Amino acid sequence: MQQLSVDLGDRSYPITIGAGLLDQAASFTPHIVGKQVCVVTDDTVAPLYLERLRETLVGYRVETVVLPTGEAFKNWLTLQQIFDALLAGRHDRRTTLIALGGGVIGDMTGFAAACYQRGVNFIQVPTTLLSQVDSSVGGKTGINHPAGKNMIGAFYQPQAVVIDTDTLQTLPRREVSAGLAEIIKYGLIRDTDFLLWLEQQMPALLELDAQTVTEAIARSCQIKAAVVAEDEREGGVRAILNLGHTFGHAIEAHQGYGQWLHGEAVGAGMVMALQMSARQRWISDADAERCISLIAAAGLPTAPPPTMQEDDFMRLMAVDKKVLDGQLRLVLLKQLGHAVVTADYDVTALRATLG
Amino acid sequence: MQQLSVDLGDRSYPITIGAGLLDQAASFTPHIVGKQVCVVTDDTVAPLYLERLRETLVGYRVETVVLPTGEAFKNWLTLQQIFDALLAGRHDRRTTLIALGGGVIGDMTGFAAACYQRGVNFIQVPTTLLSQVDSSVGGKTGINHPAGKNMIGAFYQPQAVVIDTDTLQTLPRREVSAGLAEIIKYGLIRDTDFLLWLEQQMPALLELDAQTVTEAIARSCQIKAAVVAEDEREGGVRAILNLGHTFGHAIEAHQGYGQWLHGEAVGAGMVMALQMSARQRWISDADAERCISLIAAAGLPTAPPPTMQEDDFMRLMAVDKKVLDGQLRLVLLKQLGHAVVTADYDVTALRATLG
Repeated sequence: MQQLSVDLGDRSYPITIGAGLLDQAASFTPHIVGKQVCVVTDDTVAPLYLERLRETLVGYRVETVVLPTGEAFKNWLTLQQIFDALLAGRHDRRTTLIALGGGVIGDMTGFAAACYQRGVNFIQVPTTLLSQVDSSVGGKTGINHPAGKNMIGAFYQPQAVVIDTDTLQTLPRREVSAGLAEIIKYGLIRDTDFLLWLEQQMPALLELDAQTVTEAIARSCQIKAAVVAEDEREGGVRAILNLGHTFGHAIEAHQGYGQWLHGEAVGAGMVMALQMSARQRWISDADAERCISLIAAAGLPTAPPPTMQEDDFMRLMAVDKKVLDGQLRLVLLKQLGHAVVTADYDVTALRATLG
Repeated sequence: MQQLSVDLGDRSYPITIGAGLLDQAASFTPHIVGKQVCVVTDDTVAPLYLERLRETLVGYRVETVVLPTGEAFKNWLTLQQIFDALLAGRHDRRTTLIALGGGVIGDMTGFAAACYQRGVNFIQVPTTLLSQVDSSVGGKTGINHPAGKNMIGAFYQPQAVVIDTDTLQTLPRREVSAGLAEIIKYGLIRDTDFLLWLEQQMPALLELDAQTVTEAIARSCQIKAAVVAEDEREGGVRAILNLGHTFGHAIEAHQGYGQWLHGEAVGAGMVMALQMSARQRWISDADAERCISLIAAAGLPTAPPPTMQEDDFMRLMAVDKKVLDGQLRLVLLKQLGHAVVTADYDVTALRATLG
């Protein structure tokens, strides 16, 4: 078991990583104040882990909300089901929401916790590799709008993140690769040693070797926690966590949410960011190639869908949250292990990357 | 012109009160960072003041959203219109929302600002007496749920509150009385001197004498700002601002939102709180009577609708945000000018008050 902390003053919280945490009451009880708990999950995760969690939470009044699975349901209508259940069950301000599932469940449950009676407690229990290393840490919550991903949401921190690595055993292969995309991202933006380690450990990671996976999750969460502690509300440096995401979000929006996995879109998006950084001559072609090989080795796509044109990207990226006063800023690599958010790039390099 | 400040560390902001502020660019420009502004108002206020505000905001890219008027529209569907407009107009994270209208517009615009791209700036420009002394100050934002008022929302502070007292000249008499309910509340919970002053000044207030009204608004905002600074997220003392509101919310919900004005329901609710406090022998019958006379003098109802039964109140109050672990806490007066939030009351006194 590994434990680390996200340091945000009076909003600090622990991340615990280990096997079998779902069955241990001690993972949860220190973070629940009242008697009321509401577990939110989806119809993929519910049959696998909901009963186990319910048994762990003996002694509490436990409500459960089972939502339909997938990014396509990350909207207001689905969110409303959480509010309806909380109100029907007379949950008050001291209730605790528990998000049991992947990133969509975490984002929606966190946003529901942020808004219900103007804010109640919640605990993240991410069950996918992607959510374990990314969305469950840092307090970004929200839902999609037809015009853009995560356009409606809140910065709202959980009371704790509980990562049970056993849950990865039931994860489809494609989703393991999607999680590896975000793990590789941490190496690219901040830690070349970690990048080297990932090149060596990729076979063990793909086999979900327990110790290797725990180490990869812990190092990823450490980097994310450090960046979030520097800039909780994404006024500056936090945006580097979006390496590959501006391109990736455009791919997801173009294909229809839920077609490409988020991590797959980020994989292809990181390849585009690497290629553009190389075109800017900020990183060498050799380094770009080596990183693209690592992305490919993780089982991720290394190019956007062939149906997407430059115009599609330009139109879809125009609503990115990094647009300021009409100018699109991108996350690029000034050197390997050092990402920047910048509007100071060559537009022909951008067009060549998109075209 | 009077200026005061809500002291909340890095979320502090000024409240400016005076005649003609709507026409002065200096009321707004210090609080707008980008070039994009979105004014949200309703179809009652728009014909009166929208054009004037637009002229004041010359030099900015101004979007306007005109919503249907009234509490009945304080819901997700209406809120969605703000998000749609912001996205269609490509507003980015540096945009500033301006709420031009009463409490419903302020609450919805504030909540939209809290959620749009996880939080953008906003300015409150309250145009009703009620919103000038109450909802525009303190950062409570939100929408209603069919099962309860303000059940979905956020604590989110504006960059500034701009109160142009000229706007009261177009306010219907009934809404002036509704505003006076909250003004009287401040005297009841914290300031017996202010209560005395209100008894003397009620005729001038009802005539909207400029100087008297400015003074009443400033003293009300001062008391509210002090309470909010002590307890921004309503962990404790802030709940005293809800004197009369638990009863009042039940009345509003029972009658259907928009039938009774919020201030009218609070007026009747404060009478019930006064009667119950007297039944508890915390205040004298004479003091209760005197305060009820002041509420009547302001043109407010002093009893709930005759169709409401004890059971209606109990059912509707069970979802109040002050319920903790199943126990209903009420705001009552321990003495005149000193309110408390307590579950330690005589249930027969409660039933006698409701019955």
